[in-house]
Amino acid sequence: MKIISDNLRITLPSISQAVKEKNPDPIEKLVKKCADLHPWAIDVNTGPLGRHFEADMVFIMDAVQNVTDLPLLIDTTNAEAMRVAVDHSKNPLILNGVSLEKQKLEQILPLAKEADVDIVGFLLYPDSRVPQDEAGRFQIAVELCEMVRAAGISQDRLIIDPVVPPLVWNNGIEQARAVLDVIRMLPELLGFDVRTIAGLSNLATGAAKQAGKGRVEQSYATLLAGAGLTYLLMDVLNDSIRNAAVTADLLLEQEIFSWAMLD
Amino acid sequence: MKIISDNLRITLPSISQAVKEKNPDPIEKLVKKCADLHPWAIDVNTGPLGRHFEADMVFIMDAVQNVTDLPLLIDTTNAEAMRVAVDHSKNPLILNGVSLEKQKLEQILPLAKEADVDIVGFLLYPDSRVPQDEAGRFQIAVELCEMVRAAGISQDRLIIDPVVPPLVWNNGIEQARAVLDVIRMLPELLGFDVRTIAGLSNLATGAAKQAGKGRVEQSYATLLAGAGLTYLLMDVLNDSIRNAAVTADLLLEQEIFSWAMLD
Repeated sequence: MKIISDNLRITLPSISQAVKEKNPDPIEKLVKKCADLHPWAIDVNTGPLGRHFEADMVFIMDAVQNVTDLPLLIDTTNAEAMRVAVDHSKNPLILNGVSLEKQKLEQILPLAKEADVDIVGFLLYPDSRVPQDEAGRFQIAVELCEMVRAAGISQDRLIIDPVVPPLVWNNGIEQARAVLDVIRMLPELLGFDVRTIAGLSNLATGAAKQAGKGRVEQSYATLLAGAGLTYLLMDVLNDSIRNAAVTADLLLEQEIFSWAMLD
Repeated sequence: MKIISDNLRITLPSISQAVKEKNPDPIEKLVKKCADLHPWAIDVNTGPLGRHFEADMVFIMDAVQNVTDLPLLIDTTNAEAMRVAVDHSKNPLILNGVSLEKQKLEQILPLAKEADVDIVGFLLYPDSRVPQDEAGRFQIAVELCEMVRAAGISQDRLIIDPVVPPLVWNNGIEQARAVLDVIRMLPELLGFDVRTIAGLSNLATGAAKQAGKGRVEQSYATLLAGAGLTYLLMDVLNDSIRNAAVTADLLLEQEIFSWAMLD
């Protein structure tokens, strides 16, 4: 399981302010701090951006790529802003992402094909509703694969995001288990070694106390690793969660073991 | 995943001394302290015991049963001592356990049948060697089932222990992963919902530093839960490992979730 930093978000006041003022320092500092912890990639969560999306995206891409060569996930629902990111990329990119929503498929799949990059596909209904069971998720995964192939893209470019639910939803805990099962079963169901991605931060939405939140996030990160998740999108600046993810990965992936690996 | 306390061990100097002096206080205090943390059962690890195994076992069983009504695992390789425990039991018992070793099968299976209790079967070769791959483990599991049925015991009485290896073994990390796979696949392979048990403490044998040990044990406890383990034998007095086991169990077993469950 590879770790992806989800720390760079335009919803952070410091980042939103930096974009408004075109001051790269806060972005560069945050990205540098995250990159120093050796995630596999950095998620660049710009949100949809506004009227000046072109200038804003160019500014953000420049700031990020000034300080890291890591792969970047372009995390926006704005297909035009995504194209700007593609046009201003030096680092390897992943488009994050598409769903079965018609407009997204029509705008983002051709861009992924043109740029020849990986693309994340969310297991959501076309109206962005979350499926309520595993069968619903599998059906959407099959349809996403078909759409990707129909767009002339290799299915190996697709990374599936089964969408981690907040535990406080009515059936959140059941959905969280369904996500684990789906991750485990997708490669066999789709008939190829499909990669998967999951965002950890959604899970603990609404948690009042930090201790319980940390325990649940560490546990679920480990369970995701055990289910065979490829990429975990998480707060890399949180030591205890990062340690949980790294330790699970060590136990599940390393060929040899030494206690010095834990130092 | 239910938690079983592995804290009561005759290898502890205080416990060994208490048995020698027939002073129940240290045993009662330790068992009470563990039982207060609500494990599902208590493992009574008496070892083989010596010449006075009968008096020693009666004394230990009395001391333990004075302070708890929890199920007890009788953890000894001495079949005669095991019989003494059965004869002096008030609490529900599990015999821990048998392997394919001829003498154990001949002595312990009839005792399990007579006492009508659950029995742990270790996935070890008849000479107590650990199998080096999953196929070896599955073969032994099938043979254990056959032996249990041949002794007139329902296969539902069998709890399989795939034997967690120390990570520092040459191929320890590979074996630790094989144990996870075996736990996940055994019910389908054996064709019934077989229960499984694993001892966590073996894994970190030889760990120099407490921090790395704790991280590895928390991670592996969570991975065991994710693989579908029924019973985890562990140090219940270690808060961080107990929290990891309880949190994983909550995520995997509870029908509803509330953050107050983590308080």
